[in-house]
This record gives sequence, structure tokens and C-alpha cells, in this order.
Amino acid sequence: MAPKAVVGRVSLYLRQLETFQRQGQTTISSSQLGAALAIHNAQVRKDLAFFGQFGYPGIGYRIEELIPALRRILGIDRDLPLALVGLGNLGRALLRYRGFRSRGFHIVALFDNDPQKVGRTHDGLVVEPIETMAKIVAARSVTLAVLSVPAEVAQRVADQMVACGILGIMNFAPIPLSVPPSVSVVAIDLSIQLEHLAYKVQNTQGGISYVG
Amino acid sequence: MAPKAVVGRVSLYLRQLETFQRQGQTTISSSQLGAALAIHNAQVRKDLAFFGQFGYPGIGYRIEELIPALRRILGIDRDLPLALVGLGNLGRALLRYRGFRSRGFHIVALFDNDPQKVGRTHDGLVVEPIETMAKIVAARSVTLAVLSVPAEVAQRVADQMVACGILGIMNFAPIPLSVPPSVSVVAIDLSIQLEHLAYKVQNTQGGISYVG
Repeated sequence: MAPKAVVGRVSLYLRQLETFQRQGQTTISSSQLGAALAIHNAQVRKDLAFFGQFGYPGIGYRIEELIPALRRILGIDRDLPLALVGLGNLGRALLRYRGFRSRGFHIVALFDNDPQKVGRTHDGLVVEPIETMAKIVAARSVTLAVLSVPAEVAQRVADQMVACGILGIMNFAPIPLSVPPSVSVVAIDLSIQLEHLAYKVQNTQGGISYVG
Repeated sequence: MAPKAVVGRVSLYLRQLETFQRQGQTTISSSQLGAALAIHNAQVRKDLAFFGQFGYPGIGYRIEELIPALRRILGIDRDLPLALVGLGNLGRALLRYRGFRSRGFHIVALFDNDPQKVGRTHDGLVVEPIETMAKIVAARSVTLAVLSVPAEVAQRVADQMVACGILGIMNFAPIPLSVPPSVSVVAIDLSIQLEHLAYKVQNTQGGISYVG
């Protein structure tokens, strides 16, 4: 499996290639791709070489070939149905987050245990009680889920998700989850990001970091 | 300036050292610290050596010395006042995010331009119009801000923040911001995290990644 930093850069390359494609470009060199992202061209070539041989001597990369190849590498070469568990403020904000849908992630199921929330409709989806998750997740072929419940219940809900066949959890609850080795978790710790911002400001070079 | 990955690990070391301290431990070796975080002890030593000489031969690191040193390195050795700009669902969720306050970040000012939101009180803070930001930010010594406004207005609001003297922006709007070189930005791109999760699930080794 490629290191997280490499996979993060592949996501950036893919976005940048899509931009070039929209602008009508058909081929691209590692230098052009790197320049657009402030990444050294040797790094671009090394990152892509991790996954295969994509370039052509004297031509560079063919954009219409490289885009689907990178989408396949990331596992986003098809629509990925997503469950959202926890419809508090954060959950509702994530429901409206445009970046998911534009990258092929479609929220197809909503779960919460709060009687005030169960039964409500958001964007045509009814909030279901967590107890019904196994049936719904199977019926809608969901393997990925976003967990946005309070810290106190996060582990218990995660256990239920794993039991229902969820294989990947994006965890926004500010506690570490314990899951079996077959399940992947990406934990979003916003306070670490804020510490990094404080560090950058203190060291005043400025500049922009993408968390990816 | 240290690479982002190193700074992220320093945040993790700091959290782990605080846990050890709560458990009554006074000294720690790089192996113990690394083992608790699944990081190789050579990496721990290298990361810390980037910032100075902290260990003692035959003793390891003195926890009560290392914790304040790491907080100083990160720039979080004092309370950091924070402004929150944009009180939509995401903004309100971030307002309640416990991880900020526990790391020394205190939200001391709220801004929004929606007349429905201006004037409301959250946790004792009144939502102020963005036009008043310059005065309030100066009076409350704010240099860091969280930006959680819609994509359409994010650049315009960021320009206003920069004009008000904000030096660090945590950007949740799903567009890249253009800021002067003296201003730091950490951009949270949740779709990149979700792509990473898809990649991990597709490559089924599982495991837990912390975004930091």
C-alpha cells in the first residue's frame, strides 16, 4: 500500500489534471503538473511510478489516460455509496458538503438514534434508526461511512457499523476508535490541524498547506 | 520550518506525553513513546532532534521538561484566541468542537453577515457582522481564524480577514484561497480524506490513519 502522503498527492494530481483537461489540454509533462502544484517534477514522476508506467517519451502523460488510471488507483472509478451516521450540526454540514458528490461519493443512507431526528428527510433521504443499519447498508451496497456522533457513543456506534459490514470509517468523533484489522479508519483531528496552523504562523513563512 | 509530517507527529508526541504524565510517569524513552504511537524509535529521536537536544543519556526524556518544550515549539504554550467566521451548520459544529479548547485554542469572536445570525449569542459570544472584524480582532488580540463560509464568498471574506490582521486561516470552504505570503492557511479538504479512505479499503490492509 502506498504511503498516505503519496496517495494524498495522487488526489491533488487528479484534481489538477481535471483542471487542465477542462482547459482543453491533452498531454502534460511532470514539470507542468508539478509546477501547478508546487511539487518537484522528480517527486511527481516518483509518485506516479509507484503505481505503474504512465508516461510516453517525448510526450509526457496523456491526460485522458492518466485521469481514469488515477481514479482506478484511488478506488473512485465508480460511484461510491456512503452512509452518514450522526445528524447533529456536523453531520448536517457534511451532508451538504459539495466536495463529496463531486468526487463520486454519494450519501445514500442517514442514521441517527435521536427520536427527534429519526424519520426526518434531508435531500430526499429519511433518517433511519441505527438498529436498522445492517439491512439498509446491505441493500444499498454501502461499505464506507462517515461517523459524526458525540465522543461518548462513538465506539459503540463504530462497533455496530463494523458488525453491519462497513469497511471504511471517516471518524470525526474526537476519540480514537478501536476496529478490527479488516476495517480502515481515517480520523480527522482538527486540533492537530490548528496546532499546525499555530506553528506556521509562529514561524511566519506563511504559505498554504492542504490537508490530504 | 519543519515539514508538515514532523509537526503533525510532534502534536501526537505531545498528546501521548500528557497521557503518560497523567498516569504518573516522569521519564520516557524514545522506544516507549514510539511504541505507544506505532512510530519507530529512530523516527521519534530524529523528529525531536529537529528542534533541539531534549534527551538525557541513561534516562531518556524528562516528561515535565519535554511537554512545555513541545508546546513552545508548536506555538501553543499560551492561550490562543481564535475567531470563527461563518455560523452555518459547520461553524456551529466547530464552535462546540471540544478538541480546540483542550489544546489552548479559545474562540473569542464570532462573525457572520447573515442578519438572521448577527446578534445571536452562542456560549456567551455575540455574533458580530464581518464589517466590525478589524476593531474586534485588534481588541481581542486575535491572529488565528477558522473560515467556514460558503465557497462563493470565501475569497472575499478571506481578503477582509487578511486586511484585519489575521495571520492564520483554517479554511473549510472547498476552494483554494489566495492570500499574501505573510499569511498561513491550512485547508481542510475532506474529499481528499475520503479518497484516502476509499484507497485503503480497496487495498484492504485496514488500519487507522490520523489526519495531522
